[in-house]
Amino acid sequence: MVPIADDVDTPAVLIDRDILDRNIARMSTAVAAKGIALRPHVKTHKMPEIAELQLQAGAAGLTVATVGEAEVFVDHGADDIFIAYPLWLSARQADLLRKLTARARIALGVDSADGAANAAAKLAGTAAAIDVLIEVDSGHHRSGVRTEQLLEVARATRDSGLRLTGVFTFPGHGYAPGKPGEAAELERRALDDAADTLIAAGFPIARRSGGSTPTAQLAATGGVTELRPGVYVFGDAQQLELGTCTPDEVALTVAATVVSRHETANGPRRIILDAGSKVLGSDRPDWATGFGRLIDHLDARIVALSEHHATVVWPDDAALPRLGARLRVIPNHVCLTTNLVDEVAVVRDAKLIDWWKVAARGKNN
Amino acid sequence: MVPIADDVDTPAVLIDRDILDRNIARMSTAVAAKGIALRPHVKTHKMPEIAELQLQAGAAGLTVATVGEAEVFVDHGADDIFIAYPLWLSARQADLLRKLTARARIALGVDSADGAANAAAKLAGTAAAIDVLIEVDSGHHRSGVRTEQLLEVARATRDSGLRLTGVFTFPGHGYAPGKPGEAAELERRALDDAADTLIAAGFPIARRSGGSTPTAQLAATGGVTELRPGVYVFGDAQQLELGTCTPDEVALTVAATVVSRHETANGPRRIILDAGSKVLGSDRPDWATGFGRLIDHLDARIVALSEHHATVVWPDDAALPRLGARLRVIPNHVCLTTNLVDEVAVVRDAKLIDWWKVAARGKNN
Repeated sequence: MVPIADDVDTPAVLIDRDILDRNIARMSTAVAAKGIALRPHVKTHKMPEIAELQLQAGAAGLTVATVGEAEVFVDHGADDIFIAYPLWLSARQADLLRKLTARARIALGVDSADGAANAAAKLAGTAAAIDVLIEVDSGHHRSGVRTEQLLEVARATRDSGLRLTGVFTFPGHGYAPGKPGEAAELERRALDDAADTLIAAGFPIARRSGGSTPTAQLAATGGVTELRPGVYVFGDAQQLELGTCTPDEVALTVAATVVSRHETANGPRRIILDAGSKVLGSDRPDWATGFGRLIDHLDARIVALSEHHATVVWPDDAALPRLGARLRVIPNHVCLTTNLVDEVAVVRDAKLIDWWKVAARGKNN
Repeated sequence: MVPIADDVDTPAVLIDRDILDRNIARMSTAVAAKGIALRPHVKTHKMPEIAELQLQAGAAGLTVATVGEAEVFVDHGADDIFIAYPLWLSARQADLLRKLTARARIALGVDSADGAANAAAKLAGTAAAIDVLIEVDSGHHRSGVRTEQLLEVARATRDSGLRLTGVFTFPGHGYAPGKPGEAAELERRALDDAADTLIAAGFPIARRSGGSTPTAQLAATGGVTELRPGVYVFGDAQQLELGTCTPDEVALTVAATVVSRHETANGPRRIILDAGSKVLGSDRPDWATGFGRLIDHLDARIVALSEHHATVVWPDDAALPRLGARLRVIPNHVCLTTNLVDEVAVVRDAKLIDWWKVAARGKNN
């Protein structure tokens, strides 16, 4: 049980170091047992300290979402980074990537002939130093090529001077109750089909890279060659409600104080916490029970979120917490939470042991 | 028309200086014409440069949400600050407030006897140097006392040694189509009733402080004595859809690049922009058409938002933008957007003229 130290003002992001370590070990072991490489997505935590723990536990490299994130982690010693995003490179980003390739193996995503041509033109002489993975749409219908575009994009990538070495996908359609299994199967099939098509056409495709925390543990041996889950290090309320983690496996919570309390009348029986969308983030899928959960009061419901308030409706049969009480909130989507604070409090055995800076916070491009 | 300069990497927050100036002047004039003081909520922008423009245009003081925000704006010269929040003060916050009272008039919110007692205990000898306004619930059912608690909380505030000088409310129930008028009327009535009750009981109530951008222009002469709108400086997609601003009055947009483009098959006809929830924020009320709007393509619909992607479904009768095109997104809730970037690009007459630092970003407590 994480303490809520009085020397930490609320709202504050707390990370339980023991649970974090267990989460990192569990995913490493599960993925390694299938002979798959783990390339965790560090946009979830944005902290070099945690990336280092993941690499020590056997991660083959890191995944990031932006060139700015890549820079932060290379500066902290990472030497193998995949920017799993169909970037439309700017001149500044290309300059930065050129510098990073001197210190790290860099891969980036492409999902169009125009995107490949733009990247190659901006990278000029260094294009061949960068690996490219083509993004395929495995059913999420966000970015990613469809089957009939694959060879055209692959040829454009090769002809532009970039080094095509793999395919990747993000099975985001696994983020719904009962869907992870189906999404994992669609992911495997989409990557296999794309790799087979490209290999048959003479492309040396070595990497078949998949997502995601809901689908990672379901990946079949012999399918994907690497996985890019992110959220698993912390867990969050979405994962809890999807059944991919338990409350004991939630490593990150937001300490909050009861600032207002309403036992009767004027709206529902409720408390107001000093943690709102500016620390929790306001993601709320249709299937979620609310805007996060209270880790020690799982039956309470966060029915509304303002910037600095969470409105929590309390179960009728439970006593309403007193004013000034400190409670811990599990955010719905933890990747947003870490991006909203400059540092996090690290706790172990009911003691505050460290503060970690969120070094890549706000690196939006 | 704001340019999307090639020297600004996307996603980037752009502020049109001329529209900003007009928005500040318009609200100042409208509120002054009713004899009401304007105390803009600076949590919207978190920038001393904009607070200075608001004060130059006649604002009586500033409203903030946290002690950390108060510190930033006092450090930049503000001398009259209302922390419009029922704070449960920590020792550190009380120390800071004590220091700030030497340089500025500070007011804070209270909505419970316990909250008042805690504040007074933590502030110790300086309690009398701080103004307190009691928050009343005018129908939003978040924080705020109900009528029958008012006198108890007022007496506890006085007896604890704090200086009770006013009442305030936040008419958050005005954030829905057709609701601003009703919310403004409930706001006026709640503040009048509370002030009358307290004055009759011998409390010297001088301030009746109301919200908010949807209701501010509807405030009646002779009701509230001050208003705390925030969003009006920029406008956002919520205000646009509520009808409280027009596209020409939107001063803040997020420049984004088309990174993926899907003319046919595999999901809807769409583009993917490189602006997601990590720059736009993911607030999305039930009545909103999507996760923001495109300022030059108001018929397009942002149907999904990932951390670094916006999925935009395009009108059937309009040509899909090319890959690499730059478009501008109006966020749904602009207060979240400024809190997600370290600095904003200021533009005027199609030129980048300045960068402003978001000095109070992330000041969560």
